[in-house]
Amino acid sequence: MAQHKVIFDTDPGVDDAMALLFLDLHPDIDLLGITTVFGNATVETTTRNALFLKQLWNIDAPVARGAGRAIHPDRIEGPPPTFVHGDNGLGNVAGVPETVSIEPDPRPAAQFIVDIIRANPGEVSIVAVGRMTNLALAIALAPDIVDLVKQVVIMGGAFDVPGNLSPAAEANIIGDPEAADTIMTAPWKVVAIGLDVTHQTIMTRAEMAEIAEVGGPKAQFLSDLSQFYIDFYSHVINDGMFVHDSCAAVYVVAPELFTMRRGAVRVSCEGIAVGQTIQKPDGTFFPPGPWDGMPSQDVCVEIDASAVMALIKRTISGR
Amino acid sequence: MAQHKVIFDTDPGVDDAMALLFLDLHPDIDLLGITTVFGNATVETTTRNALFLKQLWNIDAPVARGAGRAIHPDRIEGPPPTFVHGDNGLGNVAGVPETVSIEPDPRPAAQFIVDIIRANPGEVSIVAVGRMTNLALAIALAPDIVDLVKQVVIMGGAFDVPGNLSPAAEANIIGDPEAADTIMTAPWKVVAIGLDVTHQTIMTRAEMAEIAEVGGPKAQFLSDLSQFYIDFYSHVINDGMFVHDSCAAVYVVAPELFTMRRGAVRVSCEGIAVGQTIQKPDGTFFPPGPWDGMPSQDVCVEIDASAVMALIKRTISGR
Repeated sequence: MAQHKVIFDTDPGVDDAMALLFLDLHPDIDLLGITTVFGNATVETTTRNALFLKQLWNIDAPVARGAGRAIHPDRIEGPPPTFVHGDNGLGNVAGVPETVSIEPDPRPAAQFIVDIIRANPGEVSIVAVGRMTNLALAIALAPDIVDLVKQVVIMGGAFDVPGNLSPAAEANIIGDPEAADTIMTAPWKVVAIGLDVTHQTIMTRAEMAEIAEVGGPKAQFLSDLSQFYIDFYSHVINDGMFVHDSCAAVYVVAPELFTMRRGAVRVSCEGIAVGQTIQKPDGTFFPPGPWDGMPSQDVCVEIDASAVMALIKRTISGR
Repeated sequence: MAQHKVIFDTDPGVDDAMALLFLDLHPDIDLLGITTVFGNATVETTTRNALFLKQLWNIDAPVARGAGRAIHPDRIEGPPPTFVHGDNGLGNVAGVPETVSIEPDPRPAAQFIVDIIRANPGEVSIVAVGRMTNLALAIALAPDIVDLVKQVVIMGGAFDVPGNLSPAAEANIIGDPEAADTIMTAPWKVVAIGLDVTHQTIMTRAEMAEIAEVGGPKAQFLSDLSQFYIDFYSHVINDGMFVHDSCAAVYVVAPELFTMRRGAVRVSCEGIAVGQTIQKPDGTFFPPGPWDGMPSQDVCVEIDASAVMALIKRTISGR
């Protein structure tokens, strides 16, 4: 079987680091590039972290630096969530240098995405696990890419469940709602994997320790950098961490573990529901409204969480 | 046991007529007044219908005419949904006169509500099954009523499920979202019974026919006026009608048939999510936001649908 060609758009970020290791280690994935975006930390920090992990883990794929702020000029980004991902974006783990000795690709992430897609028409899966800003900029730069991408798999949204940054909104969407609405309504295939299912995928401390023991230095470092994040989640999880971003990576190789609902998706950009992802399931009928004429996308409503976790553990421990 | 004193705020409306008959016939309910509002039809029509049903069914309670439009000047009401409730608001049933010979109470609904509540401090349940406009006007007129009402039981909202006028919004809320937000955030007890559960309460054609046969002329007329509405719902229900409004009436006498989730509720008043009801369940934590400091309300998340339907059938068939 040919490998799945993937661009990973990311804001590392602790759970991003796990997804990156998964994408690099899975034998059926050909990681063509890593693009960075603000979110879990500033884009300076997420880019440094991507370069650092590339170097540490011997990842071939180039890193291209992306957007540092949301598309709409009125969206002012607050301070990064250091209480979730640490001051260095990698759980305050020791050994992350201020700067790394390798350079990012000279192109901005949006241009890099466009070039990779055009060079691999119909073949690239974009796995996007941060704000959707780089993807929206790529579409603005080259609208033709919507016909050339295989699929866009995002970790983002909260469809039938509460959000995590407000009762309505999940962090990746509320961080750039206009960009997310652009991505959801573009005529390409979007697969949205949101809190509806990622809140079911938990890696316990014991599982992480076992992976570290079996997996060698790469997995050990992943375990080290994840401890801060696990501590943060102790207010909602008895023991462990949500693996959010890795779910989107798993989808590329094992879509059969996910149950989808099709229908147009819009993102609320105003008022108390800002950042909410709202789907009109296919086959439902309403008076004329903002969902009309928009493409049906796949929203994940169920997940085989134990199979997804088993695949993640197997892959990142190298067994 | 003392009877439950009830004000019924309503826009009859087919399912409103069933709820009215339930409230009038249930032995444990003392129906103190009927207040009308626009929604299922114009307020002229809903008021005529309330007066007509009062006369036809020999209901003691007075009828007071309420609001004909939403509170916010920019909310322009479209044409009434005659395809749901018929041109006459009662399913185009024969025998509804253009005008009726009895007069409404001289007071506007909001003043009537205030007077009844002040005359029965701590005792009145408001059962509100249309736009929340009259209640918002009553609070504006007399803020003291929030401490004098026993509870406000509304049929309205769609919390964890899609709406019915948009993927985000239920009809009673989107019809006057500012009023609904006022009601939800007032420091009184609100019980919100929305589509999450009313879409589980279906009366079939056969059940309606049986009620008509057993229940005599009142039930027969209810059955007659419901046929148009049942026909309308044939696009979503195999056989029958949602009894929406009656669920709120049932709650007054049988709250044990409903499972509640507590938490502050806000109504989205802007953008594509206009009219959406969004709860922050108690015990969940988010960055500072519009739910902070608002009273916890009861949102119905589960219903014993078969017991609710049995109670409705028993009551309106007079057995």
